[in-house]
Amino acid sequence: MSQIIKAGLVGVTGYTGMELARLMIHHSSMELVRVTSRSEAGKKLADLYPFLNRLPLGELVITQPDAADLADCDVVFLAVPHKTAMEIAAELIEAGVKVVDLSADFRINDKATYEAWYQVEHTRADLLKEAVYGLPELYLDRIMGARLIANPGCYPTSSILGLAPALSAGLVETDNIVIDAKSGASGAGRGAKVGNLFCEVADSFKAYGLPTHRHTPEIEQEISKLAGTEITVSFNTHLLPIDRGILSTIYTRLKGEADLDAVHRTYTDFYADKPLVRVLPKGQLPETRFVRGTVFCDIGLVVDPRTNRLIILSAIDNLCRGASGQALMNANLICGLDIDEGLPMAPMMP
Amino acid sequence: MSQIIKAGLVGVTGYTGMELARLMIHHSSMELVRVTSRSEAGKKLADLYPFLNRLPLGELVITQPDAADLADCDVVFLAVPHKTAMEIAAELIEAGVKVVDLSADFRINDKATYEAWYQVEHTRADLLKEAVYGLPELYLDRIMGARLIANPGCYPTSSILGLAPALSAGLVETDNIVIDAKSGASGAGRGAKVGNLFCEVADSFKAYGLPTHRHTPEIEQEISKLAGTEITVSFNTHLLPIDRGILSTIYTRLKGEADLDAVHRTYTDFYADKPLVRVLPKGQLPETRFVRGTVFCDIGLVVDPRTNRLIILSAIDNLCRGASGQALMNANLICGLDIDEGLPMAPMMP
Amino acid sequence: MSQIIKAGLVGVTGYTGMELARLMIHHSSMELVRVTSRSEAGKKLADLYPFLNRLPLGELVITQPDAADLADCDVVFLAVPHKTAMEIAAELIEAGVKVVDLSADFRINDKATYEAWYQVEHTRADLLKEAVYGLPELYLDRIMGARLIANPGCYPTSSILGLAPALSAGLVETDNIVIDAKSGASGAGRGAKVGNLFCEVADSFKAYGLPTHRHTPEIEQEISKLAGTEITVSFNTHLLPIDRGILSTIYTRLKGEADLDAVHRTYTDFYADKPLVRVLPKGQLPETRFVRGTVFCDIGLVVDPRTNRLIILSAIDNLCRGASGQALMNANLICGLDIDEGLPMAPMMP
Amino acid sequence: MSQIIKAGLVGVTGYTGMELARLMIHHSSMELVRVTSRSEAGKKLADLYPFLNRLPLGELVITQPDAADLADCDVVFLAVPHKTAMEIAAELIEAGVKVVDLSADFRINDKATYEAWYQVEHTRADLLKEAVYGLPELYLDRIMGARLIANPGCYPTSSILGLAPALSAGLVETDNIVIDAKSGASGAGRGAKVGNLFCEVADSFKAYGLPTHRHTPEIEQEISKLAGTEITVSFNTHLLPIDRGILSTIYTRLKGEADLDAVHRTYTDFYADKPLVRVLPKGQLPETRFVRGTVFCDIGLVVDPRTNRLIILSAIDNLCRGASGQALMNANLICGLDIDEGLPMAPMMP
Repeated sequence: MSQIIKAGLVGVTGYTGMELARLMIHHSSMELVRVTSRSEAGKKLADLYPFLNRLPLGELVITQPDAADLADCDVVFLAVPHKTAMEIAAELIEAGVKVVDLSADFRINDKATYEAWYQVEHTRADLLKEAVYGLPELYLDRIMGARLIANPGCYPTSSILGLAPALSAGLVETDNIVIDAKSGASGAGRGAKVGNLFCEVADSFKAYGLPTHRHTPEIEQEISKLAGTEITVSFNTHLLPIDRGILSTIYTRLKGEADLDAVHRTYTDFYADKPLVRVLPKGQLPETRFVRGTVFCDIGLVVDPRTNRLIILSAIDNLCRGASGQALMNANLICGLDIDEGLPMAPMMP
Repeated sequence: MSQIIKAGLVGVTGYTGMELARLMIHHSSMELVRVTSRSEAGKKLADLYPFLNRLPLGELVITQPDAADLADCDVVFLAVPHKTAMEIAAELIEAGVKVVDLSADFRINDKATYEAWYQVEHTRADLLKEAVYGLPELYLDRIMGARLIANPGCYPTSSILGLAPALSAGLVETDNIVIDAKSGASGAGRGAKVGNLFCEVADSFKAYGLPTHRHTPEIEQEISKLAGTEITVSFNTHLLPIDRGILSTIYTRLKGEADLDAVHRTYTDFYADKPLVRVLPKGQLPETRFVRGTVFCDIGLVVDPRTNRLIILSAIDNLCRGASGQALMNANLICGLDIDEGLPMAPMMP
Repeated sequence: MSQIIKAGLVGVTGYTGMELARLMIHHSSMELVRVTSRSEAGKKLADLYPFLNRLPLGELVITQPDAADLADCDVVFLAVPHKTAMEIAAELIEAGVKVVDLSADFRINDKATYEAWYQVEHTRADLLKEAVYGLPELYLDRIMGARLIANPGCYPTSSILGLAPALSAGLVETDNIVIDAKSGASGAGRGAKVGNLFCEVADSFKAYGLPTHRHTPEIEQEISKLAGTEITVSFNTHLLPIDRGILSTIYTRLKGEADLDAVHRTYTDFYADKPLVRVLPKGQLPETRFVRGTVFCDIGLVVDPRTNRLIILSAIDNLCRGASGQALMNANLICGLDIDEGLPMAPMMP
Repeated sequence: MSQIIKAGLVGVTGYTGMELARLMIHHSSMELVRVTSRSEAGKKLADLYPFLNRLPLGELVITQPDAADLADCDVVFLAVPHKTAMEIAAELIEAGVKVVDLSADFRINDKATYEAWYQVEHTRADLLKEAVYGLPELYLDRIMGARLIANPGCYPTSSILGLAPALSAGLVETDNIVIDAKSGASGAGRGAKVGNLFCEVADSFKAYGLPTHRHTPEIEQEISKLAGTEITVSFNTHLLPIDRGILSTIYTRLKGEADLDAVHRTYTDFYADKPLVRVLPKGQLPETRFVRGTVFCDIGLVVDPRTNRLIILSAIDNLCRGASGQALMNANLICGLDIDEGLPMAPMMP
């Protein structure tokens, strides 16, 4: 019988940290042995999250984040804001610990682009080349050998997976892509802000962050690689009054004639051996509830002959596939486990 | 002191009928004197809608729909499905009653287009020429003299008001318009369907009806007139887990350079003397809650120099401005009252 | 034609302040001429609340709270926390301004009881005797002549109106009353706290504040007067994932035999000339949506012969009847207007 | 290696059927091999539930319910309405199949009581004596040897688990128990009714079914056994605008003095070796989200010295612990597996 892999989690108080704790409960080959938080150190995890009462994980005591303390872990998840992650990531790697960084710090290959969009200095750009963008459907082999994973952003995950087959196959024009993305409120984080209060979010809907959401360069970097040409997208975000879920409606123009069968075949072929992306049968459209709590990305395809457009609908759970679930997929891979080990395959319905 | 205008309502059991009842309670110059329903005839209105208990309107007895009975009304609202409206509309007009038809039956100028999209025969096409499309910001004068108002659809109201200034001024390309629209669940009607249950709609989000929603020809007809050229749009709809509200995110490409100040001025000029459309200050974006229960259309403008796009955000309440509230605006106008008489100006917040 | 009454509002940034602004828009005899806020002074009201764009009220500039500035008002609403209200209330009264205080500061007749439950010193206890508890169904005459109104709490309003007829008529035992109350999230205020975030409140339900909610002594004070004997209640509160609305389920034991007809008659008689309390027909139960945005209190009655209990269901909108709407009822009364002037009678449905 | 247990499911189209499908996906010792539905027979399960796309369970073809077809199962779950279950349950038992009946048909020991409350004839009362009430915390040994499990109702599960320690220990008066229960909308089933539409349930709250909910005799039967005396309760139900979750607020009067420590000790002792009931630390109260999707029952305790009451807060997930999850606990037990095998221990948060 193989040894249990020891995992650490830096930043347990946000929604991605909470989600990772949820997922680890059922993982039989990996165990969370250290969790850290600057503000909650000293508490047991169950004091912070009563849903962990009477579970072994609930007994774990939260500590201050410290690379030395985490050095006995096989893998560490960084669920902290950008800029906060870069230094501790470097320290951990030097200590021989594998790192899955959920922040944006190592996603952008180009230091200058990162600094322009995030408005902070990148002090560990030496690691940018080594970091692997953790989208397993695109980078499986590199991920399996990586020390440092740049876990993709939630919006980019849904956008890139939605566009990959069409761009790889050259089906659509590259200068006319619009991504209209909608996310549940957990994407806004767990900070105490008036704008995130129940009474401000419930029963309402709005766009935000237009037209310069920070996930734009991440999307452009990856879809440009897929298309083999520089792409500029119009990427726009909206806030849904739901806890979890992203639906991206992606508008493209077909180069050739509108043929749903052919497009659908391109997609099912592309994802044939990648079971965590589900290309829906023709005529079906994704709903965020069908992927809730899972790492599935559901893709629906619509071809509109009137406008010769291909409209791609791509749904994920922003906290699970869009953050902690994908982080666990990556951790599984770099630790030699099956990609889906310990991950829920069934959404909670309703 | 002027006489009270007598109004009738055909179809009181749906959400648009319910909304009209709500609005009429505070109207001091118009009174609902007849309400009809095939299924609920014989009941008092308060039996159907307990929120009308102890209000005079609650005592009104629901009758079977019958044009003769309604002939003593000054104006009649038709809140019934398409096809059901066309005959009774004609009968009422012949009886000298003014009609505000909330169905789609008289919105499409061209009989063949109507029949192609709605898949029913139009038996009263003789009235199509006379019917006035009831969007007061565009057709104020014609509405004031009309006998038959084709009350606009909810999605078209938000889309057309959002695009009108840009198209009238020739600011944007006409062959590259995408409307990504999102609506609250009341837009799906009050029919007892599994898909509309709380547990199927709450905590989820999806697209539906792509790419051939029936509001498409209505939008294309009106924006083509505004632009002076035939426009084909990509119009796509989504279901929000909220009761009320539509937000349309409209993607256009600027013909000239990206200049938010100039675009904003075009919009504020266009709506300068039309106080029920609110062009938001630069940098502000609309939220559906800010128009909830009102006839306001809130418009936010974003210019993206990276893609040279103008993104127009247009928010309305689908039941109020998108249906019954606009119907009352039209009824006010054809009866010689102020456009906003009896209409709430304040959304309920939160 | 009579002169417009000038009103001031101290504390415009919370939900009760926001609600009062909403209600004043349609009031034709009273006008909000001053609004104050420590944190937002200097802004126009529409900057704070975009829903007031293009409305005259939106142009009003927020000022620092100052009794001298408010002295030209006929009536001032205090929508500030307890303890903050007592001094400015006193100053305003001395300046000849009538005051409707939405805080708890003048609701408890007994200084010691107030201080024990609110854990602060009452520095203006000299005014406790003069302050009138602003529940118009009980104290109409005194309110009409008052200078200082202690506007009731939200939970007490629903509880006291629900119990008043039964206790006045001596129908139920006084030592066995349980109030199980549930409130929408706006009752928790607009403070930026993690516990009030959308993702913490939506899709969940909990009790809170048991068993010593501060509204307990207020309820006991008033129902003891009605019953003519000291009553101790079990009063318990829960948080609903809705914006607005309180439903109190009140459990009592009948002294005599279980006779719904007799109980119902007692209630309809008690509220016969009080149209803002609606005793529902036998067999109907209240729903918070039927009173949303209004000052109605809807009461449903259930008699259970198996346990000889009378169960009273009492629903209000916590922000409207439970706070700002009732404040406006009181302001109307002390200014000589009709109790319901300017108040919405129709809930927004759905 | 042990053989996989073969399970059948009669009635897959309701929410309890859907929930059982969700739970079975991760069960490594039991497999769903037959699912039936009168209305959907012939479809693959993934056609009905797109969330099962690309999962093996999604390929299962739905058949007509037929006892002969199900005879090769080791255990069959009946997720059908009361009255529909009784005959097929008997047929399956005669065929040697173990049955977990989620309907009410075998919960009430007394035929006459069943018939009085459910208003149908019980045609298989011969099995009432054999049927075991499937609440494992009370009947573990009997369940392990049973052929027929009467799976408890959702409300009774939360009420009985909440009251059991107090009644067993004789802590509270038995003639003054009030259960104020609130349930999420999935408890109302998946039938297409106007009252269950999103727009009728969202943003609202109401009581329903008072005072004669059919779960009353089930609760009274079980708590009377626990107390050793006949108990009549006041049991009352409310509809929450959430998908899942029940919170029962249970009011009792203490016989002795109010001593939270002693009460809490009684509860933790009672559930010491029953890890699926979590007695929360003193001062903590349950929230439905903390048990969402799990079989936990969370219990919070409040002692109020002012009224000498013990208030018990008991939270479960109505679909999981209140139906399908508990059914799976029972199936595990009658098949010789661990009680929690295959069951999720972590709620989805948020």
